[in-house]
Amino acid sequence: MKFISEQRHDDGVLEREFTLGEIPGTLWTPASAEAAPVPLILMAHNNGLPKNEPRLVARARDVAARGYAAATIDAPGCGVRPRSAEADQARADLRAAMQAGAPADELDGIFERLVGPLVENAAPEWLTTLDALLDLPQIGDRVGYSGWTALGIRLAVTDPRIAAAGLFAGGYVPVALRAEAVRFTIPLLFLLQWDDEGNPRQRALDLFDAFGSREKTLHANLGGHVGTPWFEAEDAGRFYDRHLKS
Amino acid sequence: MKFISEQRHDDGVLEREFTLGEIPGTLWTPASAEAAPVPLILMAHNNGLPKNEPRLVARARDVAARGYAAATIDAPGCGVRPRSAEADQARADLRAAMQAGAPADELDGIFERLVGPLVENAAPEWLTTLDALLDLPQIGDRVGYSGWTALGIRLAVTDPRIAAAGLFAGGYVPVALRAEAVRFTIPLLFLLQWDDEGNPRQRALDLFDAFGSREKTLHANLGGHVGTPWFEAEDAGRFYDRHLKS
Repeated sequence: MKFISEQRHDDGVLEREFTLGEIPGTLWTPASAEAAPVPLILMAHNNGLPKNEPRLVARARDVAARGYAAATIDAPGCGVRPRSAEADQARADLRAAMQAGAPADELDGIFERLVGPLVENAAPEWLTTLDALLDLPQIGDRVGYSGWTALGIRLAVTDPRIAAAGLFAGGYVPVALRAEAVRFTIPLLFLLQWDDEGNPRQRALDLFDAFGSREKTLHANLGGHVGTPWFEAEDAGRFYDRHLKS
Repeated sequence: MKFISEQRHDDGVLEREFTLGEIPGTLWTPASAEAAPVPLILMAHNNGLPKNEPRLVARARDVAARGYAAATIDAPGCGVRPRSAEADQARADLRAAMQAGAPADELDGIFERLVGPLVENAAPEWLTTLDALLDLPQIGDRVGYSGWTALGIRLAVTDPRIAAAGLFAGGYVPVALRAEAVRFTIPLLFLLQWDDEGNPRQRALDLFDAFGSREKTLHANLGGHVGTPWFEAEDAGRFYDRHLKS
């Protein structure tokens, strides 16, 4: 893991870009991490939005200001990484199908082609990154996950180091990953926008029901995909505090 | 309003029983209320459980320890008040119907007979109590409501002094009150136990959808009727802080 840039924010949070082989990433750490290791939260946006996407960066800095290391990467085909022809084709098909008013099951078929491979390609790189991050002296052994639901399911059922997850119910989850939800057993905070455009509410509620976690909480708020109220960041902070700091 | 008993708890909360005409009630106030008025939260248990029910008392003391006045009453036919023959008959019918494995629509019919009059009789007494409480020097003009959903709908659509409500989705809500939900427009925290026995989940989700509030949040947790996790009391406290203290 090579750090290639470093920026200190006014609130003491240190923001560093890194590369790990071909993987570009960003790590945010609070000032307190220089005295003692802090828990880590892996932060991924639905469907592999770029690691410098402003809302993701804002959330990561907020998490770091709460005493966590926060990390994100550009997974294969995402952000600055070389694009995948298959994913580009699927995205073009999706746009065309939406403009044509295609039925939901046709859209779902395209989403399967798009999101399935994104998750399959992203998961091993996130775990490689996790290995490297856990070797840093600033980072302790408590690990949480935040954001992209489909990837979060895959990581949590694969890697027992991930101890708690806050998932955003606003992205397509491939059928195969929905079937894995029963094996997802860590504490879960599931965040739903009640009127999320294009993300069927009932499917999200069914997924919440399917998770195997004994402790799971659903927070639903009125509004569309990007309308999550600010107080949910505070609620998420307390969720991680309960599971990663106590 | 006559205070008939007074008890000071270790955390400074003052617990006083009162009578207001025929209405018996309890008021909890934090020590801070003796220096400056504090916001008030009206606390009612689903279907008029008695005001000294231990879980209600524990919640009220918790709310008072967070800097609120908390008040509850025994409404007509509830707690120490003279029982209603019609309500007793409905409760007996309900037990018999449940033991006989009666279909859901038959149970609903009995619930209508039971809960409808409970709310109609309780609402004016809660408002009378609110008038009297707001005359106390310890109580400011910000008012919230907590608990019994059916009564909360009726009070909130009737009285604009109620500025925010945390409702528990674990009781039967008569059809007429469900129809009023669209006129319920204050900030709402709606608390659902995902596996609440005898309270259909879909009906609770439909009711959440129906509320007219622009700011409404659903919190759902795994488990049965009385399994609400302790952290929801903290979340509710912050919900009231946002709307009644800021």
